[in-house]
Amino acid sequence: MKNQTYRMTMLFDFYGELLTERQKEFFDLYYNEDLSLAEIAENAGISRQGVRDVIVRAETAMQEVEDKTGIIKRFEAQRPHMDAIEAAAAEVKTINFRRYEDPRVTELTDLIAKEISILKE
Amino acid sequence: MKNQTYRMTMLFDFYGELLTERQKEFFDLYYNEDLSLAEIAENAGISRQGVRDVIVRAETAMQEVEDKTGIIKRFEAQRPHMDAIEAAAAEVKTINFRRYEDPRVTELTDLIAKEISILKE
Repeated sequence: MKNQTYRMTMLFDFYGELLTERQKEFFDLYYNEDLSLAEIAENAGISRQGVRDVIVRAETAMQEVEDKTGIIKRFEAQRPHMDAIEAAAAEVKTINFRRYEDPRVTELTDLIAKEISILKE
Repeated sequence: MKNQTYRMTMLFDFYGELLTERQKEFFDLYYNEDLSLAEIAENAGISRQGVRDVIVRAETAMQEVEDKTGIIKRFEAQRPHMDAIEAAAAEVKTINFRRYEDPRVTELTDLIAKEISILKE
């Protein structure tokens, strides 16, 4: 299951609060804290398969919401546009640095870079 | 209920696909198509109160998801950053137009404006 960590982390980031407390706990321990199923099972006093079932159910529930709403897809579709803005602002900054040395343009291109990095967080 | 149309439209845009077919239909007719409860009731052959109940339940379901996930809030928090980028790019464009007339800078600031407008859609 751990080969899908990126997707799982995204699902959990967006939809984690829709899970039950137990689903949240196991999912977090497994994907974010990187514990093994056996470790989580031992701590919780249940079987390894039991832990696995809880995590799989959590994943299914979150994936179903995503399949219906497409919200993560929507967020990710913003990325190339943010990259394009970032690259354009960097190029303006370079042109200004080489040719015009306008301090206000430097300020403004830095501001765009800062705002983009906030949006990308 | 219709004084909350903006909020309802946002909820429906993000979470509408989590509703039942009937909830979706009534919600859409009421908030997007601007039919009255009485009109929807007449078409559906049920009481005005019945229609109202379906719509209120749909709203509650979507608001609960939003209260847990905060996804719409997250989208809306991007807005001031996009506005700041848009304003900065417009100012660079103006400075360039007045002082330097660098065609590549014009191109790049136009590109930033275009990409921001896509992000804001």
